[in-house]
Amino acid sequence: MPNPTAAMLVIGDEILSGRTRDSNMHHLAQELTKVGIDLREVRVVSDDAPAIEAALLALSGAYTHVFTSGGIGPTHDDITADCVARAFGRHIDVREDARALLAAHYARTGAELNAARLRMARIPDGATLIENPVSTAPGFTVENVHVCAGVPAVFQAMVASILPGLTGGVPLMSQSYRIMRGEGEIAAPLAELAGEFSDLSIGSYPFQQNGAYGANIVIRGSDGARVDAAMTKLAGIFPS
Amino acid sequence: MPNPTAAMLVIGDEILSGRTRDSNMHHLAQELTKVGIDLREVRVVSDDAPAIEAALLALSGAYTHVFTSGGIGPTHDDITADCVARAFGRHIDVREDARALLAAHYARTGAELNAARLRMARIPDGATLIENPVSTAPGFTVENVHVCAGVPAVFQAMVASILPGLTGGVPLMSQSYRIMRGEGEIAAPLAELAGEFSDLSIGSYPFQQNGAYGANIVIRGSDGARVDAAMTKLAGIFPS
Repeated sequence: MPNPTAAMLVIGDEILSGRTRDSNMHHLAQELTKVGIDLREVRVVSDDAPAIEAALLALSGAYTHVFTSGGIGPTHDDITADCVARAFGRHIDVREDARALLAAHYARTGAELNAARLRMARIPDGATLIENPVSTAPGFTVENVHVCAGVPAVFQAMVASILPGLTGGVPLMSQSYRIMRGEGEIAAPLAELAGEFSDLSIGSYPFQQNGAYGANIVIRGSDGARVDAAMTKLAGIFPS
Repeated sequence: MPNPTAAMLVIGDEILSGRTRDSNMHHLAQELTKVGIDLREVRVVSDDAPAIEAALLALSGAYTHVFTSGGIGPTHDDITADCVARAFGRHIDVREDARALLAAHYARTGAELNAARLRMARIPDGATLIENPVSTAPGFTVENVHVCAGVPAVFQAMVASILPGLTGGVPLMSQSYRIMRGEGEIAAPLAELAGEFSDLSIGSYPFQQNGAYGANIVIRGSDGARVDAAMTKLAGIFPS
């Protein structure tokens, strides 16, 4: 059976304006790889309702899971929850269990559960809450879309809450081999190797170091013995 | 007149598997912001021809410019040029001026212009070459799609080659203000400010530092005087 697939939707002007460097994509990619869910696509869109809704529907229809990051805080530019509700035709309002979580949290910290903070308890009908051990305000899952916060510490905690509940696949085995020669020198034998091991993914990632060219060859596949065999052959062709 | 728009297409399994952290998106976002071209969307897809071609066509049709990164090297997993040719129905083959660039480069470095390296001179019909002062092998522009290398130093050099030839827009003025209070405390006055200055984009980006909550408020717009006015008002509401 093929592995489940996933896409990520990063929501936020701050990434597209170059103000902030996204780090959630890299984290999610690593976590999904560990559990055998194939991250196939990432989209970054701005805080624009039609763009968010169109991306949600496209990705939700194409992949097993969609993870979103960003736009679920208390301020006026946090519009993700409403976009998810609209995209999936669901009513959205303050939900009692989410409100209770926030009320308990703000009672502990001595802050007021005001109207802005109460926005974070607005959850589309039929959603499942995602636990937020960092700052309490929950994410939520609607259909196959997991709606998470954008602040990296909270995003990571929410992903950690979600993953144990998902059906994973076969984690890909991955080995890499560093060759201090230009890609143009190694391309032909590498293509031959890729042809022979067509059940594996063999990628070449070039770099430059102190003026010299090199490439990291990454061999990935679900069958560890095959990855070993290809790696042994590669090391035989290009001894270090 | 509204600013020109842009999208970016990042091509490469290495980002989606979590092996590599993309940095080209952040660089492009910053460069486009400087020249008043609005980066509206980024997509990351794997080394999969149908996925690349579908994304190319979708983005090319929706935005003024598309920048791609990755997949134009000499190895078997470099399939971007062929995907671009197929997506736009163009023939692709080794082009003489691109071949001459590579021949001169490898003559200088003493390496052989072998079949693998010659693949980097394969250019779709009717394309314009993009200069690569770092490692010579050119990128190219077809219709509104600028095809660049994925290695960050080369990507950056190619973007620097392309941008002077594009019609820019009005660079957004941007000012930011740091408030050491939780977003929930500041959301209501901030929403009021955003309503009053609806011609500006006012974003709130929360952070946590040593256990305390704060937010960076970023005010952006094409009219510097309006940004100043909003910022003055914001600082009056939340004196530092």
